[in-house]
Amino acid sequence: MQPMTFEPTAESIAPAGVRYRIGLSQQTLRNVNFTPLNPLSFLLRAALIYPDHIAISHPNSPQPVEYTYRVWAQRIQNLAYALIQSGIKPGDRVAVIAPNCPLIADAHNGILAARGIIVCINTRLLKADVEYIIQHSGAKLILVDHEYVSLVEDVSVPTIVSLDTGRVGDPYEAFLSNGRRFSQERGWAGLEMETDEGAGASLNYTSGTTGRPKGVLCTLRGSYLAAISNAYESRLSRTSVYLWILPMFHASGWTYPWACTFAMLKQITLRTVDIESIWSHFLHSGVSAYCAAPTVQISIVTSPQARRLPSPVSAIIAGAAPTSNLIGALESLNFQVCHVYGLTETYGPFTRNYDRPEYAKLSLEERAKLYARQGHSFAQADEVRVVKVDKEGRRRPEMVDCDDLEPGEVVTRGNIVMKEYFQDKRATDEAFRGGYFASGDIAIRYPDGSISIQDRSKDLIISGGENASSLAIEQELSAHPDVLEVSVVARKHDKWGERAMAWVILRPSSKDKWEGKGKEFEEDLIRFAKQKLPGFACPEWVYIVTELPKTSTGKIQKAVLRQRAAKL
Amino acid sequence: MQPMTFEPTAESIAPAGVRYRIGLSQQTLRNVNFTPLNPLSFLLRAALIYPDHIAISHPNSPQPVEYTYRVWAQRIQNLAYALIQSGIKPGDRVAVIAPNCPLIADAHNGILAARGIIVCINTRLLKADVEYIIQHSGAKLILVDHEYVSLVEDVSVPTIVSLDTGRVGDPYEAFLSNGRRFSQERGWAGLEMETDEGAGASLNYTSGTTGRPKGVLCTLRGSYLAAISNAYESRLSRTSVYLWILPMFHASGWTYPWACTFAMLKQITLRTVDIESIWSHFLHSGVSAYCAAPTVQISIVTSPQARRLPSPVSAIIAGAAPTSNLIGALESLNFQVCHVYGLTETYGPFTRNYDRPEYAKLSLEERAKLYARQGHSFAQADEVRVVKVDKEGRRRPEMVDCDDLEPGEVVTRGNIVMKEYFQDKRATDEAFRGGYFASGDIAIRYPDGSISIQDRSKDLIISGGENASSLAIEQELSAHPDVLEVSVVARKHDKWGERAMAWVILRPSSKDKWEGKGKEFEEDLIRFAKQKLPGFACPEWVYIVTELPKTSTGKIQKAVLRQRAAKL
Repeated sequence: MQPMTFEPTAESIAPAGVRYRIGLSQQTLRNVNFTPLNPLSFLLRAALIYPDHIAISHPNSPQPVEYTYRVWAQRIQNLAYALIQSGIKPGDRVAVIAPNCPLIADAHNGILAARGIIVCINTRLLKADVEYIIQHSGAKLILVDHEYVSLVEDVSVPTIVSLDTGRVGDPYEAFLSNGRRFSQERGWAGLEMETDEGAGASLNYTSGTTGRPKGVLCTLRGSYLAAISNAYESRLSRTSVYLWILPMFHASGWTYPWACTFAMLKQITLRTVDIESIWSHFLHSGVSAYCAAPTVQISIVTSPQARRLPSPVSAIIAGAAPTSNLIGALESLNFQVCHVYGLTETYGPFTRNYDRPEYAKLSLEERAKLYARQGHSFAQADEVRVVKVDKEGRRRPEMVDCDDLEPGEVVTRGNIVMKEYFQDKRATDEAFRGGYFASGDIAIRYPDGSISIQDRSKDLIISGGENASSLAIEQELSAHPDVLEVSVVARKHDKWGERAMAWVILRPSSKDKWEGKGKEFEEDLIRFAKQKLPGFACPEWVYIVTELPKTSTGKIQKAVLRQRAAKL
Repeated sequence: MQPMTFEPTAESIAPAGVRYRIGLSQQTLRNVNFTPLNPLSFLLRAALIYPDHIAISHPNSPQPVEYTYRVWAQRIQNLAYALIQSGIKPGDRVAVIAPNCPLIADAHNGILAARGIIVCINTRLLKADVEYIIQHSGAKLILVDHEYVSLVEDVSVPTIVSLDTGRVGDPYEAFLSNGRRFSQERGWAGLEMETDEGAGASLNYTSGTTGRPKGVLCTLRGSYLAAISNAYESRLSRTSVYLWILPMFHASGWTYPWACTFAMLKQITLRTVDIESIWSHFLHSGVSAYCAAPTVQISIVTSPQARRLPSPVSAIIAGAAPTSNLIGALESLNFQVCHVYGLTETYGPFTRNYDRPEYAKLSLEERAKLYARQGHSFAQADEVRVVKVDKEGRRRPEMVDCDDLEPGEVVTRGNIVMKEYFQDKRATDEAFRGGYFASGDIAIRYPDGSISIQDRSKDLIISGGENASSLAIEQELSAHPDVLEVSVVARKHDKWGERAMAWVILRPSSKDKWEGKGKEFEEDLIRFAKQKLPGFACPEWVYIVTELPKTSTGKIQKAVLRQRAAKL
């Protein structure tokens, strides 16, 4: 860790005697016992109570910065005024394209302080997708990190570039300075708190595996409640240190930007997922919690830097169920595994695998099987339900039995369900049909009420009236010694309606063995499958390929495979 | 600890396959992304996730009981149906008169499940006050512990008596059985969730030092948010054990009955504040947190049973600032001191003294001075403010400077401020005047924004235009070697407007010394005071008495003293 020689710009320093209270409208003041829920309030409280604690540390960039809550709050106030000065009105969207860095953390607060809606865009998207999101969201302004300027070079929306330096001469700093000049006299009281807690806070585009990204509109109320839930469930406190590994542009970092200010803790931002520097922070920066998908967790535990941590660190895992290998490795290094499940539409986590004292007696293998379940509803989430799916794949109002046998669709409702798909009433109505938000995920439910995801509903293979989980088939096929990667999709079948088709990448060491013997490999793999899977789930066709079509976030595009299968 | 041989009644056992979801109206179901905040939801979630964990343990009563979340939730469902069957309609008040025991914990959930409003009545009140509260609240039904039946013997409202046995033959159990018979087929889904989160949850009467008790109406939304704040701030989790020392009838136990179900933890109820059994639980029951006023905390640390705890226990202190002696004693026994401040009108705590890393370097005396401050706003509370008070003692909209010099009145607003004083529009309007709830407490505010309570506003002595804190004067006078207890109130003065009058109980050992020498003692005490207090704060008159008038909760009735002073 290099020593911090950084001094924030003069205009980032708060004037003496600043009061951390935002303006309340007459309408709000009439209701003495009602304040609209708004996650911005967490920042103001943290700045009041712990002005000199570190709020944001950004140590690994070429020009490291570190801000106390006092300085950070002033920068956010400057940002809010700069946005207002540049024409942002309540409800306007402001796009942000950045890796984990102060800019995107600022934006999660400053845009809310200007009563705008933050639209974070995945930096890994193609230019055309970025342009689509900017156009669809109607963003009035773009805050962009210097590394991603080319993504917006053909867009006519005004753009502010951040060089991620925090130093005089950075265009983003100049923008903030405008705000400071404008705000000099008014302070926080000159900004007005949004009176409607149902107003938009963030608009997050899903990197869907089919079609155009959809804009998930989240409210102030939902963000506030979800952030508190995350702080509570991860046991974040004012002595915690949160390490940003999950990109903040993923579903607003599952509301952790606000969970961190609620907890009044220190956030460390890293521009890239660099395992070596992650380990350096685990060992030397007092990190207490982080979120990451299993693939990143695997890189962490298999890193040469890995060693047992002196104190436990909460490893929050989502995106896919952790394997027993991963759980065992994490535990042996003193990570406390917290497996959660959620979607962009649910502000991140809405279920959690809750530990039980009786697990302590089980073997790692047995425990890992239980830990792999998505579990029960999260704090402040309504109960997660699993409803029946009919033969046409349409969901029914009735719930499946808690018998761990019958798969159904995961649905939920309540305060941490999105407001809507932005400007897409048809998609919203379909997702909300029947009074519940349909996740599109297929799960079974155990007698203890916990759920276990089996597949995406559109990836289910409905064969002879039976639902076959493409994920379950893939899991079995991937155990074949010659299979490196496999994806299974449905293909029309005259007799059974649909049947599974497997797309396989061979291991490099097995390529010669099956060279020119596609038919023989197909027979071999089907024979292998029949030992482990029911007949309706066994693949009818097997195709060897050299690569699989993937989205910018690395998800396999099953829709593309289905189209290819249909054309064969 | 005696072993538990208790089996819950057959009707307390939930039927197989129970689903912990309450009925949602069509109106609620239309809003997929909105669930009215309601602390009852915590119980249902706990029963779903941890059905076999202990929810309530009541070990020290002649007939100990212990309920798992599954059993407890069934009993609460039975209670809700029994209440509905007995005629309770949404918004109806149900009175509860009980010490800490399962009945009053049940009622905090069961009455909400029936959409009623819980009215807990202080068991230490006089019969006339109890009758007044029952009449004023319009309670339709009374749930009363057998020990307090005489308090309601002349009341015509239907009464259910609990013998606190949990066994067949107890009238309360018979009442629950009615509910079970009635609910058999309907389950939780047959109860309907209140659609308005602003509806009443509890009605708590303040034991005011003047006049009739006022009914503080708290909402579902406020109770939900306050309970989560308390769970978060006290770091309650599903492995915690909460010990009930604070009476649940005090401001709904500061919302801890719901904080405990949010945390899905085990509550231990004790009918009486018995220090010996409290210590037994600290040492043998894995207690992790409790709330108590300083007087009880003093009994705890000075108990012969006191010894250093093997793991830290959160000691939540409110009601008065802890002294350095108390803090030192608590710390040396491995209690973690958490000093909070609040009122019935704010659902319990709305500020907290937040620890700072730099405190570690200070001496106990220095730290204790800082710990004695009431601190900053609590999680989910709006900022606590201190506003100017004019010469007539009326509050002004302007805030005092953060200079630790100018006293003003503590005000706040937001989600954890009561809905209203029940059926007392005049008192509500006065308390809410200017858009803030006025606490009636006088504080100074330090440069770091923290507050320190100086006095109740009506107990201030306004002398020659200066505000003298009666508490500050009492603190100085109590250091006189002959003073056991002292209370200071204002008395009219021709020249200065008001002047301080001290009412003193002498130490038993000093009584002979001053026998028949009231005038000499007065001179001696005034001389003593002049060394420590500014002239306007020195008592003008000193009266020796043998006792001071107190309320049922042990607060000195300064209004009575003021009346007596005026008549002298």
